[in-house]
Amino acid sequence: MSILVVGSLGLDTIETPFAKVEESLGGSAVYISLAASYFCPIVNLVGVVGEDFPEKYIQLLRDHHIDLEGLQIISGGKTFRWSGKYDYDMNSRETLFTELNVFKDFNPIIPESYRDSKFVVLGNIDPELQMSVLKQLHNPKFVICDTMNYWIERKNEALRELLKMVDMLVVNDSEARLLANHPNLIHAGKIILKMGPKKLVIKKGEHGALLMTDEILFTAPAYPLENINDPTGAGDTFAGGMIGYLSKVNTINNEELKRAIVYGSVLASFCVEKFSVDGLLDLNYLKIKDRFNQFFSITHFEE
Amino acid sequence: MSILVVGSLGLDTIETPFAKVEESLGGSAVYISLAASYFCPIVNLVGVVGEDFPEKYIQLLRDHHIDLEGLQIISGGKTFRWSGKYDYDMNSRETLFTELNVFKDFNPIIPESYRDSKFVVLGNIDPELQMSVLKQLHNPKFVICDTMNYWIERKNEALRELLKMVDMLVVNDSEARLLANHPNLIHAGKIILKMGPKKLVIKKGEHGALLMTDEILFTAPAYPLENINDPTGAGDTFAGGMIGYLSKVNTINNEELKRAIVYGSVLASFCVEKFSVDGLLDLNYLKIKDRFNQFFSITHFEE
Repeated sequence: MSILVVGSLGLDTIETPFAKVEESLGGSAVYISLAASYFCPIVNLVGVVGEDFPEKYIQLLRDHHIDLEGLQIISGGKTFRWSGKYDYDMNSRETLFTELNVFKDFNPIIPESYRDSKFVVLGNIDPELQMSVLKQLHNPKFVICDTMNYWIERKNEALRELLKMVDMLVVNDSEARLLANHPNLIHAGKIILKMGPKKLVIKKGEHGALLMTDEILFTAPAYPLENINDPTGAGDTFAGGMIGYLSKVNTINNEELKRAIVYGSVLASFCVEKFSVDGLLDLNYLKIKDRFNQFFSITHFEE
Repeated sequence: MSILVVGSLGLDTIETPFAKVEESLGGSAVYISLAASYFCPIVNLVGVVGEDFPEKYIQLLRDHHIDLEGLQIISGGKTFRWSGKYDYDMNSRETLFTELNVFKDFNPIIPESYRDSKFVVLGNIDPELQMSVLKQLHNPKFVICDTMNYWIERKNEALRELLKMVDMLVVNDSEARLLANHPNLIHAGKIILKMGPKKLVIKKGEHGALLMTDEILFTAPAYPLENINDPTGAGDTFAGGMIGYLSKVNTINNEELKRAIVYGSVLASFCVEKFSVDGLLDLNYLKIKDRFNQFFSITHFEE
């Protein structure tokens, strides 16, 4: 089934205690699309870059059968740039700079050929733009949306409108607490479910993720890794793995949703093992399924 | 099978954003023993209190068939006291005061009738004292030991000697990182396993626990709770639930160890729902098994 991903593309400069990369490929739409690409024949991408966006990155995306008809390339414009620095323990990071550039005036226009997409991820952009994407679609089957503190605080009303229209909200723990205005995560989750989305995923970084619906609660750890090189993009990769798996099975039920969370964690674990998107470039079904099985064995116990 | 617990008994003054209790029953040996008491007919306790230790607490322990032949009551002495204050989110706490009192000169003497105990928890005390307990035992089957930053830094050599003699070390994540001198938890775990203990449990508070042995890695979340009233004693309760379950099945293998971790989490979840030890007073097998089954359903997915 066809997947549509809307979000940012950027050039990231990332510093960890062990290494530094400059102007590497990044952005939410990139991580989501690459992760999803292992589950479906084509991912439709909508985003914006400047004229300076390297041709090699265009090629990299094409090599992963990511369709770029929806990619706006602004002549004379500069691509979105972000820089961050990670602490020794890789759990906290500092943003060194953000240059929105062409992303500042991003207006997502969905090409006609994308409008029948059934599985959709609205990456973390202005909720008004996320809503405008939804309005351009014909009949999506499952819509995931991401957001962040900035929109929760500054565009709360638009976000609340949007939440009534999406199937699943994916946020991290601090965003969930802020959105619900409650310190307890489970309680916060229940409050958020009442705002509209039928399903909620709360990402907890190295501590895994929580799925909440009206029917079930499911908790998955992050895959325990000995070598974490760069956590950038892990949350987006998680969403990409989830939507990829759901589109592949083309079924939304409790068991498939649980497995989708685990596939999301699996893809995120590959992501953080290498710098930038490098961990997402050479995967295949066998590698992914093998780690999924490992995931089963480290969490499974007999009743 | 008989269980022996050695550790502290104390009077805790605990403050949370919601309430405050003064001089309530606390101490590692108390939490461990109460949790273990739901799995076995008798728990043998070795510890020390002062003359001021309330008779009602003695009775409370006896009511949970905790044998007190090993409890030293120092005439004229004052009981160990601890006071802590929790933040709004219940995840971090500040120690307001610690008065060691009679606990300062604690010398654990194991009564003859306890020396055949098969399942043993060495609560967090000086590793030299933990070693002296081991030397008094005849032929224990499974020994769990706890420790803390203070001993890792100040009694490292004695601790390292002890680690060669125990079956399982139970520590929290920051203690594991300190002991192994490595920021990555999985890598730290491998380093610690080389120090001697055949099994290692790393407690991650609200994020669950990790079991590592030479053969397996197993990760269990904390039970997701909507109401957390007092996290005091959760880690000790976890160890008590584990040793209780292992003594009940009297079998140490990978599958039973995994279930023991989950039972530990189950008991810890009851502990934090109420203040002080209150959450551990009125449990029974059905309540415990029911939450164990809930635990299965929130973590289980089909391969």
